[in-house]
Amino acid sequence: MDHSTTALLTDRYELTMVRGALASGTAARRAVFEVFARHLPAGRRYGVVAGIGRFLDALEAYRFDDPALEFLISHGIVDEPTASWLSSYRFSGDIWGYGEGDLYFPGSPILVVEAGFADAVILETLALSTLNHDTAIASAASRMVHAAAGRPIIEMGSRRTHEMAGVAAARAAYLAGFTSTSNLEAGRTYGVPTAGTSAHAFTLLHDGERNAFRAQLDALGKETTLLVDTYDVARAVAVAVELAGPGLGAVRLDSGDLAETAHEVRAQLDGLGAEKTRIIVTGDLDEYAIAGLASAPVDGYGVGTSLVTGSGAPTAALVYKLVARAESEDGPLRPVAKRSVGKPSRGGRKWGVRHLGEDGKAIAEVVSTSEPDPGPHDRSLLTPLVRDGEIIGREPVAAARARHERAMAELPPRAFQLSRGDPAVPTDFR
Amino acid sequence: MDHSTTALLTDRYELTMVRGALASGTAARRAVFEVFARHLPAGRRYGVVAGIGRFLDALEAYRFDDPALEFLISHGIVDEPTASWLSSYRFSGDIWGYGEGDLYFPGSPILVVEAGFADAVILETLALSTLNHDTAIASAASRMVHAAAGRPIIEMGSRRTHEMAGVAAARAAYLAGFTSTSNLEAGRTYGVPTAGTSAHAFTLLHDGERNAFRAQLDALGKETTLLVDTYDVARAVAVAVELAGPGLGAVRLDSGDLAETAHEVRAQLDGLGAEKTRIIVTGDLDEYAIAGLASAPVDGYGVGTSLVTGSGAPTAALVYKLVARAESEDGPLRPVAKRSVGKPSRGGRKWGVRHLGEDGKAIAEVVSTSEPDPGPHDRSLLTPLVRDGEIIGREPVAAARARHERAMAELPPRAFQLSRGDPAVPTDFR
Repeated sequence: MDHSTTALLTDRYELTMVRGALASGTAARRAVFEVFARHLPAGRRYGVVAGIGRFLDALEAYRFDDPALEFLISHGIVDEPTASWLSSYRFSGDIWGYGEGDLYFPGSPILVVEAGFADAVILETLALSTLNHDTAIASAASRMVHAAAGRPIIEMGSRRTHEMAGVAAARAAYLAGFTSTSNLEAGRTYGVPTAGTSAHAFTLLHDGERNAFRAQLDALGKETTLLVDTYDVARAVAVAVELAGPGLGAVRLDSGDLAETAHEVRAQLDGLGAEKTRIIVTGDLDEYAIAGLASAPVDGYGVGTSLVTGSGAPTAALVYKLVARAESEDGPLRPVAKRSVGKPSRGGRKWGVRHLGEDGKAIAEVVSTSEPDPGPHDRSLLTPLVRDGEIIGREPVAAARARHERAMAELPPRAFQLSRGDPAVPTDFR
Repeated sequence: MDHSTTALLTDRYELTMVRGALASGTAARRAVFEVFARHLPAGRRYGVVAGIGRFLDALEAYRFDDPALEFLISHGIVDEPTASWLSSYRFSGDIWGYGEGDLYFPGSPILVVEAGFADAVILETLALSTLNHDTAIASAASRMVHAAAGRPIIEMGSRRTHEMAGVAAARAAYLAGFTSTSNLEAGRTYGVPTAGTSAHAFTLLHDGERNAFRAQLDALGKETTLLVDTYDVARAVAVAVELAGPGLGAVRLDSGDLAETAHEVRAQLDGLGAEKTRIIVTGDLDEYAIAGLASAPVDGYGVGTSLVTGSGAPTAALVYKLVARAESEDGPLRPVAKRSVGKPSRGGRKWGVRHLGEDGKAIAEVVSTSEPDPGPHDRSLLTPLVRDGEIIGREPVAAARARHERAMAELPPRAFQLSRGDPAVPTDFR
């Protein structure tokens, strides 16, 4: 696969629409598209915006090079005038978005794209793919982080999802508060701290668990984490402390009744003088299992499958809709909306403001079709990402991580219930 | 992101295990790892193997280049001897696998990797990521194709999943019998036929639906598919046929009660003399909704979200386990297995045979730890993919698509029930 351009990460109909609009003389009409969710995943009380930074990276690489154009022409997807238009395509409009890591609710205008129609329509799939995936993962991750109540969580789900989705998932989990990831490419590309020591295979490779532990301690030092459930946990813990001494970093449990086993292992470790040796638990954990282990003597969690699959909501249901357009390149914008049964859209370019009370807690998500006048405690949610085609909204993942923490502090307590419920903050359309 | 190598699409613990094994002198011990599923997704009656071809591509690109090594060393993940070993890493062992598109059941040895321990352990995440994702998608796709009973299905889920996962999903859906995809990169990279014409935005862009339809017909010809549910379906259908004539290719319905609307539209089209104009339906379809539309006058389906999320099972739960190893580079293999509570593994290198009756229907999935002696109607399931490090198992996606169709023909009728049930073919461990 040619990775040098993201141009073909596009649905065919976007290019046939460009073709049609070029032919009908409407391609340059000024237009506003918005990304929003009609609803949160069933029962979720808030969502976490993620993927903004990745979308900007993908936008920068969005160029129709010769091999891409050749494919499109030879398959009759575009005609020569459209190919010519695509060959010089550079997004030249403006984009605003919610800050990455911020929260969203039904109707929040997460991304606002203003440009010529053809300029903007072509980005639908690229924007939705990056945002839908990362938002789904970050939204699940945030609940897990809250359930863990300050205990660290390692992301380790790469093996359960597409190999590139795993990298993005590690990034999304980190910005939502996970501590580290098993995924090395996420470490290199996004600076997410990486973690991991050994699997059962390492124990099985050696002639006995004792030899495996000794090999790992020799190579990685006594601060390492030893996996103790390959054969018999109690015997493994005894051998681990015997070899490493009471300064052993951690032991990992990956099977059985994790709460009960953690209590037993904690007592055993304490009895051996290894009071500071941590207990890490892994194995099909999700936010509910993490919450269920709150009273167990656990020092950290590893989460895989449920993280990369969004814990029951693997996509965020974000859509990209035309909400306003002019009758010319620079005429006044007029709201447009479809009337499809059950899927109506709200016309008009929108702004988002989080209306906060004097206590700093969110009262409403105010979505308005005219520029807002935020009160003293309110927070405007849209920030400029692209201006006249130039990307100006880049930031390190650490900034998104910090924003998420601040945004979470604004939520009312009901937002943190894991049970199904309505959005914790109602959307007020104006 | 540096896409020139797949080496860092790896979990950190694989490299620390290599480091430990190099230090303890066990890295070259001959080892066999297997990919298998302990269970199918809840209630599923069969699974579809996919991702084999993509895994082979990723394996070919699995090289630790200087930037990757620099990252690993500077972050203290590997030491100098390990970095040196990685720098010359080329997989040099043997791999066998189920043919892509074939079916699998609990315990089927989908992939068998035989090599030195370090050579093989390092591939865990790469193998599982590609196989878990693609297998989950193909398994869901196959049920949809069966439910569609010969009517074509367009894959259009790219926007609901990670941008690269979308390309892989289109490939997986196609090999399981989907007709085409909206994803252009899947068209270019894998030769999957592409489809798509317009969205509601195209209608909203124009001054009235009539102008939008005329623009699309001018650009794409009367064989195109017009989207008729932006405002009023009946009025749109009338305008569509008025403009295109009775030779209009198709109309698309994306909202409302699809069965009822399809009946109304069919009657209207027939009344207008457009008996051959097809009706395509889209909008949150899954295998159950498709089955529910069997008696409606529908000519084709478009499926997005439920396809790319595996219709409730977004990952296939495949694991990669050490099942045998020698005490030296070329000594005899000995079965190994962990005894973790609830997650035991079965030791020993395995073979898979589909035991078929005289009627050609599958009776059992025979998984044995000694080389099988298939009966006259039986089918051996493992094929060589890599020999002494050389990839020999490449094939076009069309071959996998044909294999899937053949394998489906071997299933007993109970396999095709959409309701939850046990695997349609029991696994017989020998």
